[in-house]
Amino acid sequence: MSNGAPLLEPPFATVSWSADGRALRLLDQRVLPGVEQYLETRHVHDTVEAIRSLAVRGAPAIGVAAALGLVVALEHVLEHELEPEHALLHSAARGELRGLAALLDASRPTAVNLRWALQRMLRVSESLSDDALMRGLRAEATRILEEDRAMCLAIGEAGASFITEGSGVLTHCNAGALATAGIGTALAPMYVAHARGVTFHVFADETRPLLQGARLTSWELQRAGIPVTVQPDGAAASLLRSGVVQAVFVGADRIAANGDVANKVGTYPLALAARAHGVPFYVCAPYSTFDANTATGDDIEIEHRHRDEIALAGERIVLPTHVPVNNPAFDVTPRELITHYITERGVLSPPFHI
Amino acid sequence: MSNGAPLLEPPFATVSWSADGRALRLLDQRVLPGVEQYLETRHVHDTVEAIRSLAVRGAPAIGVAAALGLVVALEHVLEHELEPEHALLHSAARGELRGLAALLDASRPTAVNLRWALQRMLRVSESLSDDALMRGLRAEATRILEEDRAMCLAIGEAGASFITEGSGVLTHCNAGALATAGIGTALAPMYVAHARGVTFHVFADETRPLLQGARLTSWELQRAGIPVTVQPDGAAASLLRSGVVQAVFVGADRIAANGDVANKVGTYPLALAARAHGVPFYVCAPYSTFDANTATGDDIEIEHRHRDEIALAGERIVLPTHVPVNNPAFDVTPRELITHYITERGVLSPPFHI
Repeated sequence: MSNGAPLLEPPFATVSWSADGRALRLLDQRVLPGVEQYLETRHVHDTVEAIRSLAVRGAPAIGVAAALGLVVALEHVLEHELEPEHALLHSAARGELRGLAALLDASRPTAVNLRWALQRMLRVSESLSDDALMRGLRAEATRILEEDRAMCLAIGEAGASFITEGSGVLTHCNAGALATAGIGTALAPMYVAHARGVTFHVFADETRPLLQGARLTSWELQRAGIPVTVQPDGAAASLLRSGVVQAVFVGADRIAANGDVANKVGTYPLALAARAHGVPFYVCAPYSTFDANTATGDDIEIEHRHRDEIALAGERIVLPTHVPVNNPAFDVTPRELITHYITERGVLSPPFHI
Repeated sequence: MSNGAPLLEPPFATVSWSADGRALRLLDQRVLPGVEQYLETRHVHDTVEAIRSLAVRGAPAIGVAAALGLVVALEHVLEHELEPEHALLHSAARGELRGLAALLDASRPTAVNLRWALQRMLRVSESLSDDALMRGLRAEATRILEEDRAMCLAIGEAGASFITEGSGVLTHCNAGALATAGIGTALAPMYVAHARGVTFHVFADETRPLLQGARLTSWELQRAGIPVTVQPDGAAASLLRSGVVQAVFVGADRIAANGDVANKVGTYPLALAARAHGVPFYVCAPYSTFDANTATGDDIEIEHRHRDEIALAGERIVLPTHVPVNNPAFDVTPRELITHYITERGVLSPPFHI
């Protein structure tokens, strides 16, 4: 971890408490890259809507937002919605807590961290005395936030030495500060290397169909002063062939027990191209991404997303009516193509003991 | 060639004479896939504008359009702009011809077929007597049109047997009927196989940044009744891994003497993925695409295109201000990854004798 050195601050706060601590504060990713704008929510419906509409996205960031959002929503209910005599009834507060957690839980059906964070909050609530409930929940949410930041930093420190002076690095999608409460996962080594004074250039795949690389990765790296160039996903292979890239860093949505990695669609062809040109391919993810219950990549079910993501460019229709799409959210990269797994527990290689 | 069998008609006329023969008729590709609309031009400025603004695109189609456009533009000048006594001065007509050819030549700076077709027209004009000039030019333009159609058909017949009953095939960009006066190059084997009653399914990469696969390839295949599914370029590798694709067909912008192929960016990673899964990779192109003056792919200069192609999605800005792009129009696929070269002279393999 950071060994007592000053904690590397994220370049901005994707998810945090508001200044007075009474609200959840989110960097509104719906209006990036045009505008840097923050929104604050207290009422559970506002937080649910923010998560549902992707004002906050990225599994770790969503988990943190849910934990903080749960606390401020409960405080809001106790202040405004329960009768004064009711507010003193701790059993009512505990009932509200479960109801609010259920509402937040339903905001994104497949977000693992969302469920994990809410269950952790509920579990903690059971061990808290009535007097300590609100204070204890707030402390637990803050711990989830700080653990996420520490996890990112540890990944960054584990991976930074793979970025050498004057090199080029390549990434896909956005596994950055915008997807966590800290400095990200795949981008964490870049933030740490930059803080150490290493000079390097990042090439970011635009990442079709949702363009997270163009909209988000390039925005956050530019804001941090790290030089970045964006390219169509199809241009990565010829860039690797040109020799200007010395390392590829990507995140992971799930890692099977054998090391196969599910990540944003387009990761697998990138790994094939990196292998063809002898460029190391690093997967950066929290240790919790390893799933002992998934034997290999073949056991990972791939979500297929909506046709409109392919059929529309902005408001413009670019696909004929009735033409179907193949729009998987993720692909699987086999472990043979992965040089190292960079986690908050250090640099790992198979076989894993999870 | 077609051995006296009825010529397989293209599904629509991308470029042709108008019904009365007095104008150049173009399928307006600027409004696809929403609207199927044709425009007719006579005046050279209208034809130049149609080529410049991509109403017609694809090297073979542009060459044919220039040849036909030159004839109708010259006829228009002789009818409307020269004094009657002038019109009889054949030297004036020949001077106009060179001027019009120069205007058309400048409409797309790097289009090889455009230059080739215009030079062929000028060369023919020199061998024509004054009396035969207009008739001879029209006959030569028609020959260029018909040769292009025959070339496409021959490629289709050479490649159709690689499409087997019940198979899946994959293509990138648009090397179809919309890019030629005939049934295309990479799509020609599909049209011929379809005409022979073979059932198969096409997967078309959307092809960032200009989305020719989504906008054009899917439109023309659907119009011809060939089942087609569109996917982000990054989804092709996992599709190949899934086993539903038995062959990949792509076009070529230039083929080096050693067999390296320059084609739309994204072709090279597709070839790597096809190789990784043992799927044959076919390059379909006119024999004239082989360039004896280019030794290898390293000798091919790659055009880099405008930032706006990456920065805008429709009207929407998706890239932060000041973030640069890597936007090469083409990449190079090494010959080792290419199973066969399918040309109007049949199926070729290196070494080539060009």
